Amino acid sequence: MTALASWRDGEAKRAITGFVARVSREGSPEFVAASARIAVFDNDGTLWCERPGFVQAYYMIGRLQAMIAEQPELGEKPVMRALAAGDIPAALAAGGMEGLMEAALLPDTGITADAFAEAAATWLQDATHPRFGVPFRRLVYQPMLELLDLLRENSFRIFVVSGGGVEFVRAVSEELYGIPPDDVVGSSVELEFARIDGRVQLVRQARFRGSPNEGTPKPVNIQAHIGRRPIVAGGNTAGDREMLEYAQTGQHPSLCLVIDHDDDEREYAYAGASFTDPGAEPITTTAARLGWTVVSMKGDWAQIFPDNVPV
Amino acid sequence: MTALASWRDGEAKRAITGFVARVSREGSPEFVAASARIAVFDNDGTLWCERPGFVQAYYMIGRLQAMIAEQPELGEKPVMRALAAGDIPAALAAGGMEGLMEAALLPDTGITADAFAEAAATWLQDATHPRFGVPFRRLVYQPMLELLDLLRENSFRIFVVSGGGVEFVRAVSEELYGIPPDDVVGSSVELEFARIDGRVQLVRQARFRGSPNEGTPKPVNIQAHIGRRPIVAGGNTAGDREMLEYAQTGQHPSLCLVIDHDDDEREYAYAGASFTDPGAEPITTTAARLGWTVVSMKGDWAQIFPDNVPV
Repeated sequence: MTALASWRDGEAKRAITGFVARVSREGSPEFVAASARIAVFDNDGTLWCERPGFVQAYYMIGRLQAMIAEQPELGEKPVMRALAAGDIPAALAAGGMEGLMEAALLPDTGITADAFAEAAATWLQDATHPRFGVPFRRLVYQPMLELLDLLRENSFRIFVVSGGGVEFVRAVSEELYGIPPDDVVGSSVELEFARIDGRVQLVRQARFRGSPNEGTPKPVNIQAHIGRRPIVAGGNTAGDREMLEYAQTGQHPSLCLVIDHDDDEREYAYAGASFTDPGAEPITTTAARLGWTVVSMKGDWAQIFPDNVPV
Repeated sequence: MTALASWRDGEAKRAITGFVARVSREGSPEFVAASARIAVFDNDGTLWCERPGFVQAYYMIGRLQAMIAEQPELGEKPVMRALAAGDIPAALAAGGMEGLMEAALLPDTGITADAFAEAAATWLQDATHPRFGVPFRRLVYQPMLELLDLLRENSFRIFVVSGGGVEFVRAVSEELYGIPPDDVVGSSVELEFARIDGRVQLVRQARFRGSPNEGTPKPVNIQAHIGRRPIVAGGNTAGDREMLEYAQTGQHPSLCLVIDHDDDEREYAYAGASFTDPGAEPITTTAARLGWTVVSMKGDWAQIFPDNVPV
């Protein structure tokens, strides 16, 4: 297969292929040793569809609804009721970000990490996108899969650096992207060591481990987890800005990619605002200022989803 | 080369080769899919020599001495003076564990993660062991290198899970063990995101990120970083106990190895006490109770260090 087959010829495609060739070709003035060829990608909206809501939000809402069905008194709290109805703005208005997060974490609190991984994997097998009518896991971006392939063929190591829950993304990262669980960095809750029925278990707590993996925590967690500065970084919201800046300001040449969701016909059209910092500069504005490569879904991608998705 | 060439025939060697064969051979009743073949090893005292002191302690003492040479008033604090003299018990008596850790972190606080990695790598090139007279980095255990090779040949993924500083171990993990930086889990300090002279930098803080990676934090950090439960685990102190229990009590067969330092002629003889919890049960006692495989350095290892080490 031709490299980047679903990418239309244009600036973005040329920027990618040119960069990969320059850093991978021995003797090139911009050659980078294979051990330093680290690539990081945001997940939601960068590798797969994040609209009309985050995939993990649908999972969480389903869990919350099941919990309220068993304990109706929980549904009397306004933040719970709004969240279970999928009305995030109302949940935010009722409980603020803290109340929303507390409610969101509740259904999976107290269960083991193993049980969570199984529940997430099971749910992801079938849970279906409301508009496209196919499982969420089919809604990965075909051009990005081709980009991952191109990078792998050129000895890059690829990591997902997601604002989403690390264990949720891990449940499908191998199947969707060929990326093993240990190469996924994300937000996470605290886990508590316990011996239960003679087995060591790690029990999920109702609080985050550090901050959610958006904004400045992204480079910090890249260093904590990967230990090397990336030379390729891709994202689609203001929450990815610091990660892209980190890649750009290392000692090596870099490629910073911003996916611009400008195609409401084949996917969605929306600005790349930050979830945790709604007032932040849209990422496409930052990209223009700092010289990053903007990928127009409408213009640069001949195809959005893989062939098995009927859209 | 024959597998495990530096291992003498005996129970430990048979336990290892038997286990690896059983879980790797398709059709075996104990077969484990390659994706679940995760192996974790403690570093200090398990993969390389940790006596008479931790390698990182020598690094830190050198840094502290240099700092005191420039700011003599620092040396007037009893905990600092004791630590700079390498007298850990006196430093503990003067400042407690907290004061000791604070003093130990001080010399590398405020520098960037990149600068720390460079300083550690440079120091590790030449810094020499007081008894053996060769660089510390030569004092890896030859039998353990052979074990890592055997596991790799059988499609295991191998991680270092160290109580030591993650960025210190990473500075040599690839060279010493063929283990890339992102496959090292360890203790770490908080890093602060900063833009310095137009570059994103991560600045080391004077406090740990979470707890030091000893005891119950080991399984928690394995889950946070690797996302799969190991089926092989090796350690040498009570601080590794929970990690070995975690491997033992998963859904797959497991191999738990304890390195018993019982050879004061060729290396050192000491009980596997915990650094952070001195009252904990010695790991060899736990091993006997839980049926783990104890590796006697004296009996099971025909050779301790690689051939290029003149001991």
